[in-house]
Amino acid sequence: MKVASLENIPPHQVVIIGGGFGGLYTAKGLANAHNVNVTLIDKRNFHLFQPLLYQVATGALSATDISAPLRSVLSKSKNTQVLLGEVKDIDSATQQVVMGDKTIPYDTLIVATGAKHSYFGKDDWQEVAPGLKTVEDAIEMRRRIFTAFEAAEQETDPEKRRALLTFVIVGGGPTGVELAGAIAELAYKTLQEDFRHIDTSETRILLLQGADRILPALAPELSQEAETSLKQFGVEVHTKTRVTNIENDIVTLKQGDEFKEIAAKTILWAAGVQASPMAKVLAQRTGVECDRSGRVIVEPDLTIKGYENIFVIGDLANFSHQNGQPLPGVAPVAKQEGEYVATLIKKRLRGKTLPAFKYTDYGNLAMIGQNSAVVDLGFLKLTGFSAWVFWLLIHIYFLIEFDHKLLVMMQWAWNYLTRKRSARLITGEESLALANVEDANSNSNYTQTNNRQPINV
Amino acid sequence: MKVASLENIPPHQVVIIGGGFGGLYTAKGLANAHNVNVTLIDKRNFHLFQPLLYQVATGALSATDISAPLRSVLSKSKNTQVLLGEVKDIDSATQQVVMGDKTIPYDTLIVATGAKHSYFGKDDWQEVAPGLKTVEDAIEMRRRIFTAFEAAEQETDPEKRRALLTFVIVGGGPTGVELAGAIAELAYKTLQEDFRHIDTSETRILLLQGADRILPALAPELSQEAETSLKQFGVEVHTKTRVTNIENDIVTLKQGDEFKEIAAKTILWAAGVQASPMAKVLAQRTGVECDRSGRVIVEPDLTIKGYENIFVIGDLANFSHQNGQPLPGVAPVAKQEGEYVATLIKKRLRGKTLPAFKYTDYGNLAMIGQNSAVVDLGFLKLTGFSAWVFWLLIHIYFLIEFDHKLLVMMQWAWNYLTRKRSARLITGEESLALANVEDANSNSNYTQTNNRQPINV
Repeated sequence: MKVASLENIPPHQVVIIGGGFGGLYTAKGLANAHNVNVTLIDKRNFHLFQPLLYQVATGALSATDISAPLRSVLSKSKNTQVLLGEVKDIDSATQQVVMGDKTIPYDTLIVATGAKHSYFGKDDWQEVAPGLKTVEDAIEMRRRIFTAFEAAEQETDPEKRRALLTFVIVGGGPTGVELAGAIAELAYKTLQEDFRHIDTSETRILLLQGADRILPALAPELSQEAETSLKQFGVEVHTKTRVTNIENDIVTLKQGDEFKEIAAKTILWAAGVQASPMAKVLAQRTGVECDRSGRVIVEPDLTIKGYENIFVIGDLANFSHQNGQPLPGVAPVAKQEGEYVATLIKKRLRGKTLPAFKYTDYGNLAMIGQNSAVVDLGFLKLTGFSAWVFWLLIHIYFLIEFDHKLLVMMQWAWNYLTRKRSARLITGEESLALANVEDANSNSNYTQTNNRQPINV
Repeated sequence: MKVASLENIPPHQVVIIGGGFGGLYTAKGLANAHNVNVTLIDKRNFHLFQPLLYQVATGALSATDISAPLRSVLSKSKNTQVLLGEVKDIDSATQQVVMGDKTIPYDTLIVATGAKHSYFGKDDWQEVAPGLKTVEDAIEMRRRIFTAFEAAEQETDPEKRRALLTFVIVGGGPTGVELAGAIAELAYKTLQEDFRHIDTSETRILLLQGADRILPALAPELSQEAETSLKQFGVEVHTKTRVTNIENDIVTLKQGDEFKEIAAKTILWAAGVQASPMAKVLAQRTGVECDRSGRVIVEPDLTIKGYENIFVIGDLANFSHQNGQPLPGVAPVAKQEGEYVATLIKKRLRGKTLPAFKYTDYGNLAMIGQNSAVVDLGFLKLTGFSAWVFWLLIHIYFLIEFDHKLLVMMQWAWNYLTRKRSARLITGEESLALANVEDANSNSNYTQTNNRQPINV
């Protein structure tokens, strides 16, 4: 009887595009796997813990607190290389990805490039109503929020001051709710003693939601609870409300058949997302179908139709085999998908396979503010302080999986005890002058008021 | 006997320009002083602990770790307002400062706007050899340092790879020494396990110093000790070496009569400083004299000639009344000057005065690397581990004076125990691609390779 020698089989080449939750957990799952080489490609040199970006945007944490260098996370995975770069194309015939002037061959490809904001066709709103997906987004939001208070302190016209102290958050999902709660905490607590000419408690915070309730992924009674808590914190919650126009610091709302205008200098976007451009590349190259948000329709094993060696996971994927609805674009889905794909690849190399992917939903949660959150575990629903403690514990648990993130807990403890937010730097334009700043957010020239060379911060 | 009523005397208006060590300590000294109103004006909304900027540049700390919001630091000083803005002019006749379209009247003015880099007339070197004065500078340095390793990982040409792994630091004062030591620690320890195609221990780090020894502010034996330690850490120290040209990633050095060329992608500037532009404004408006570096020559009480109500302190001032030499541009000088001015203002309001300012020099110190520093207290000189512990204690002591900065100590402890540096984000250009990056530092178009709107990060 002959036994085939395994020694001479060349290593199986796995290429992962994207170092978010999906890509990173695939790589972790394949760490030091026998006869597998992994290449993880990302445009950024760090993994970002996106669920906490709103804390960077509101000055509670620094960007580095919620980031971990990909190389550092994967340094013990000796079969894994990290490449900094942007994949522009995929050649599914020759099995290569194209990155700059290099091509990288793959046996198995995982595409996990995530999602970006969607302005539902109103792309010019991007400048006036920034979203929250990247570190730069968060720092830009932070700049706008704190600059608005600074400008209000110096504004003598009551109407303009009112607009400077009005914050409109578009979108009542977890990010919108968490931003609204955090800005309320800032305005009504943290900054209370810091200004001399304005009373920050006069700040108006509007949370706008198109649907009939905020946090629609949670049980209705939790949405109600969250709305009540936000109102207690001073946030005006408007459901069944759509934004029809944003222009010259005026947000036009539609509620039923009624239109309203709100003068607001700071408008933050937490509404729609769309798939990253890699979905289109895949569609062109493989003929795979995409949904309305541009997400790639995947098979029950997370591959794409006709290509059993190409997986699409995370926010980029539309997986609808569980209950007909696509799985939500949240970190736990991406993480479980990454783990599944890693296991499946290892199984396949041993000539085996796995049953279809199945997402285990452990629940949903959202932070509202100090001592208040909502948690929906299905079998258990928490609100108020117990939910808040639960939220903290869960996030600390996930942060500890990376790097040194215990320090974040200490930062939180400090923030909680002192009600301070020390990470509230306005950075980027060194020669920042309020003369510029006041008009800075009202139109797209805010990046051009800087007469200095823009620095790549 | 009549007693003059103090009640009707209008408050004495103090305006401070600049929230660095000098300005902040003046403001702190005047906190809640009787019948004194203080206005602190700064372009930034935060005080920056500049001596630790090199740790941000090398990924050990985040920018927020070494910054404190000015409003937060001064929130309990109810007689003090903080204004975000840039002073463009001073009208010494009508006693007003001009900020945008506003004027702010003063009875006493303190100018403490600090210093910026000097390229000794070679201003085009700024783009290829960035300095380290602001948060943006540090983040740009960090971007260049970590991008160089990333690009080296992907570079196949040995000569280009060598240039990518060559770091030239110009200037052998504390900043240059600390940068060189920190990059050595990065290359030879922290990053050792992180790459697959390069051996980071092949990194070349050159520290160039014009004078005949590094750290000339310290005793000669400590300079010698620092040089020996740096060499043990793998840094090439070149004294009596001047840079004559920087072009196309080639640094031309002059050592005696000999010229040498070094191919290096990353060149960091830690050499000269010059006074900020406010010195020229003052000279024009008051006729005060400036020195060669543009610093304002001040009187023994830190006022300027002919204006006993205008003080200039910190890096902007040339105070030469102690031993004929101007005091160095370091934080302790600025701090003591700020405290002196605050005390003098309060004395004057009671009809008294103070003897001339006298700087108490507690010593000089510089960090070299893990377990190694040099400390010169005059009566006591420390090197090696004891100096390193001393350096840490001193910096922790000063950081605790602000805000929450105990966390920095924990971050250091963590970095020390794990040898990790988790704050090594390459940020700013979201669509970062190494194709661009490799040429990014070689000429001034590095900021234009970004086809995205520059974001004010």
